[in-house]
Amino acid sequence: MPQHKILLDESEMPTRWYNLVADLPSPPPPPLHPGTHEPVGPEAFEALFPMALIEQEVTTERWVDIPEAVLDVYRLWRPSPLYRAHNLEKALGTPAKIYYKYEGVSPAGSHKPNTAVPQAYYNAQAGVKKLTTETGAGQWGTALAFACALFDLTCEVWQVGASYDQKPYRRMMIEAFGAVVHRSPSALTEAGRAILADRPDHPGSLGIAISEAVEVAAPDPEVRYALGSVLNHVLLHQTIIGEEALLQLAKVGDTPDVIVGCTGGGSNFAGLAFPFLREKLAGRNDAVIRAVEPSSCPSLTRGVYAYDFGDTAGLTPLMKMHTLGHDFVPDPIHSGGLRYHGMAPLISHVYELGLMEAISVQQTEAFAAGLQFARSEGILPAPEPTHALAACIREALECKESGQEKVILTALCGHGHFDLAAYDSYLSGRMTDEEVSPERFRDALATVPAM
Amino acid sequence: MPQHKILLDESEMPTRWYNLVADLPSPPPPPLHPGTHEPVGPEAFEALFPMALIEQEVTTERWVDIPEAVLDVYRLWRPSPLYRAHNLEKALGTPAKIYYKYEGVSPAGSHKPNTAVPQAYYNAQAGVKKLTTETGAGQWGTALAFACALFDLTCEVWQVGASYDQKPYRRMMIEAFGAVVHRSPSALTEAGRAILADRPDHPGSLGIAISEAVEVAAPDPEVRYALGSVLNHVLLHQTIIGEEALLQLAKVGDTPDVIVGCTGGGSNFAGLAFPFLREKLAGRNDAVIRAVEPSSCPSLTRGVYAYDFGDTAGLTPLMKMHTLGHDFVPDPIHSGGLRYHGMAPLISHVYELGLMEAISVQQTEAFAAGLQFARSEGILPAPEPTHALAACIREALECKESGQEKVILTALCGHGHFDLAAYDSYLSGRMTDEEVSPERFRDALATVPAM
Repeated sequence: MPQHKILLDESEMPTRWYNLVADLPSPPPPPLHPGTHEPVGPEAFEALFPMALIEQEVTTERWVDIPEAVLDVYRLWRPSPLYRAHNLEKALGTPAKIYYKYEGVSPAGSHKPNTAVPQAYYNAQAGVKKLTTETGAGQWGTALAFACALFDLTCEVWQVGASYDQKPYRRMMIEAFGAVVHRSPSALTEAGRAILADRPDHPGSLGIAISEAVEVAAPDPEVRYALGSVLNHVLLHQTIIGEEALLQLAKVGDTPDVIVGCTGGGSNFAGLAFPFLREKLAGRNDAVIRAVEPSSCPSLTRGVYAYDFGDTAGLTPLMKMHTLGHDFVPDPIHSGGLRYHGMAPLISHVYELGLMEAISVQQTEAFAAGLQFARSEGILPAPEPTHALAACIREALECKESGQEKVILTALCGHGHFDLAAYDSYLSGRMTDEEVSPERFRDALATVPAM
Repeated sequence: MPQHKILLDESEMPTRWYNLVADLPSPPPPPLHPGTHEPVGPEAFEALFPMALIEQEVTTERWVDIPEAVLDVYRLWRPSPLYRAHNLEKALGTPAKIYYKYEGVSPAGSHKPNTAVPQAYYNAQAGVKKLTTETGAGQWGTALAFACALFDLTCEVWQVGASYDQKPYRRMMIEAFGAVVHRSPSALTEAGRAILADRPDHPGSLGIAISEAVEVAAPDPEVRYALGSVLNHVLLHQTIIGEEALLQLAKVGDTPDVIVGCTGGGSNFAGLAFPFLREKLAGRNDAVIRAVEPSSCPSLTRGVYAYDFGDTAGLTPLMKMHTLGHDFVPDPIHSGGLRYHGMAPLISHVYELGLMEAISVQQTEAFAAGLQFARSEGILPAPEPTHALAACIREALECKESGQEKVILTALCGHGHFDLAAYDSYLSGRMTDEEVSPERFRDALATVPAM
């Protein structure tokens, strides 16, 4: 009888995060000061992050030990299961082997707690009393609320107004974990008040919510800010995913031929792919590593590689990355976690080095894949990883044509329990594909700063 | 570092269900024909269930082999994890050890697929093409929809109108697994039309939804009906929970002193408790086995032990059980899965034999327990098992007083991702305790048939 789950005991869980920077042929370009265009030092981040995280942001060490207290929390749900998708393979009639690493078993139902927990831990160690953050659909806010509950930190979340209004369950989940949620724009910050004065019913945006969370954190030494993707230290924390998957595939004697993951800010993709990329650079696998973007927000496949701001308002240092322009407003697709104008600088650098490839997928193909997956494997995926599943299915069907028995590995980064309105939209035929003409992207690309 | 999860490999999963009837000092009283008051034979159920399930309903064999095809589906999520609640123990400051068996890892997020899968399998084997069922909050409908998707059965679900309107996410989840959902009362059945003619905006009830599902199934040999709790074969299928927990506790060398589980129809409770009761009858443990009911629907603690109908309309055979009267309408509490007027006949019999005890818990105590659990263990429980968690916490705090290091085992039968409105009600102070005066239960108790 086929084995569905490849499990690790808690005692087999990796105890170090992996830093890809140590193994790349060249380092990624540094962040620059927006005025001087000079590289910024660690002190540029001190108002926002504790020193332990800033050190991880810039480290060139290959391995970073995971603190005991973080390992203990990880063990509530980690090691996460690796599944062999026997039922999906059968439904597709493919000779390919499909494996998926499932992060939906976490308290927030996604990969986000992998970094929320160490971020809360290092802040608590530094004497911080409160963390602020933004959240869109709510995955990241849920993860940080949970992590703060465990380390006795107060947690304050600015949620994009439109999501706050339309998806009350995520707000309630964040509150259940003990955090306070504000509808953004809020009257609690200058940034929020200025926007509300102009338009009292403003639906908010991730950029505005970031501004509010940063404004509250920066001046108070007992308050710090936490970010859920894009930065190096966030990607570092997520490598526990790939390190576990390496051990799990070794247990069944398989090596991946293709690795696919969905990319928004990039932390889930990097978490799975970077440890396998290390192995590839060392000649121990020859996997194609493929990022899958939504057609509505294709920073790798349609963006430019340039210095740009990380936020809409232009408050952050300039980061070299694939960007659609910091002014870019993606279509209101259902994959909230993929609606970011830029790509993590470290992933962008890896892409430029030719070590990975990227494709984009339309949302109706993604949701069709998600439903086929749910009805065969029994897990309803979040909208974000349905993009990766669509790419898996494409690959598996090509194997059916060619007869190749490829080993395909993907990251199922979360469940879709809070995203059922999106499935309902698809099932009722209301969902349409995204506009992808060059004109769609022209205006925002023009906002990338000239250097 | 403490171990949180006690896991079993797929190869260690039990391959037989356990039938408690074989080990009881006396058999449970048989179901009776409502007109003649004579015991009914298997043929009374033939219009509703395939013969393989009817045989399981009446078998006195100790063990029933689980079919290979069912084992293969179980292995998508089973063996389910047993957790040691180190973080909760620490938060309570108790010397007790608290273990919880978590069924929320299943496709439906609860224990219900344990019986939905074999029910779909046996129906498919018997040549049935479609299954009908009722669902309230939606857990059971989700489980059956998933199971039908795997065995190529059509699935038609009548959902209680009030839930259909108020909890659209569960309806969407059922549809995502490929089933058709009707708002009950519907115009598709005589039972539904009669009620709609009288009151077009009728909010529905579980009793009405059962009548509609049964009406569609009974006359068509290719259509059968599936029930999610109460009956012997359903309890039998759930014993996989307790059989796994026995193996898991043996791995860490612990034996339970107290076993607590929430009870609605009783299948989750029986699933955990019956294998341990077998061991207790054999002298291998001395556990107190305690059912926890909601104060609003206390069939064991406030009901009578008598022959009564299983449904509101009085269509089923008479079953000897603890009942509040088949006319009883529980308060609209948030634990939809516990709102049943009767208790499974087999559990009722075990209770009468003095082999277990029962208590009731108010919902505000239950939700407070659920939040304390979520913030320490990271899993947001469904409203139903928060009742069991409240009883766990009571027991653990008594251990704190007495200094006893008891081993407490409970069933966390599902997650609360679709129940956040209930948590919101609690957190905002809108939730109140249930009315529990004797007058509350008097009228319905008078509807128990005189024999």
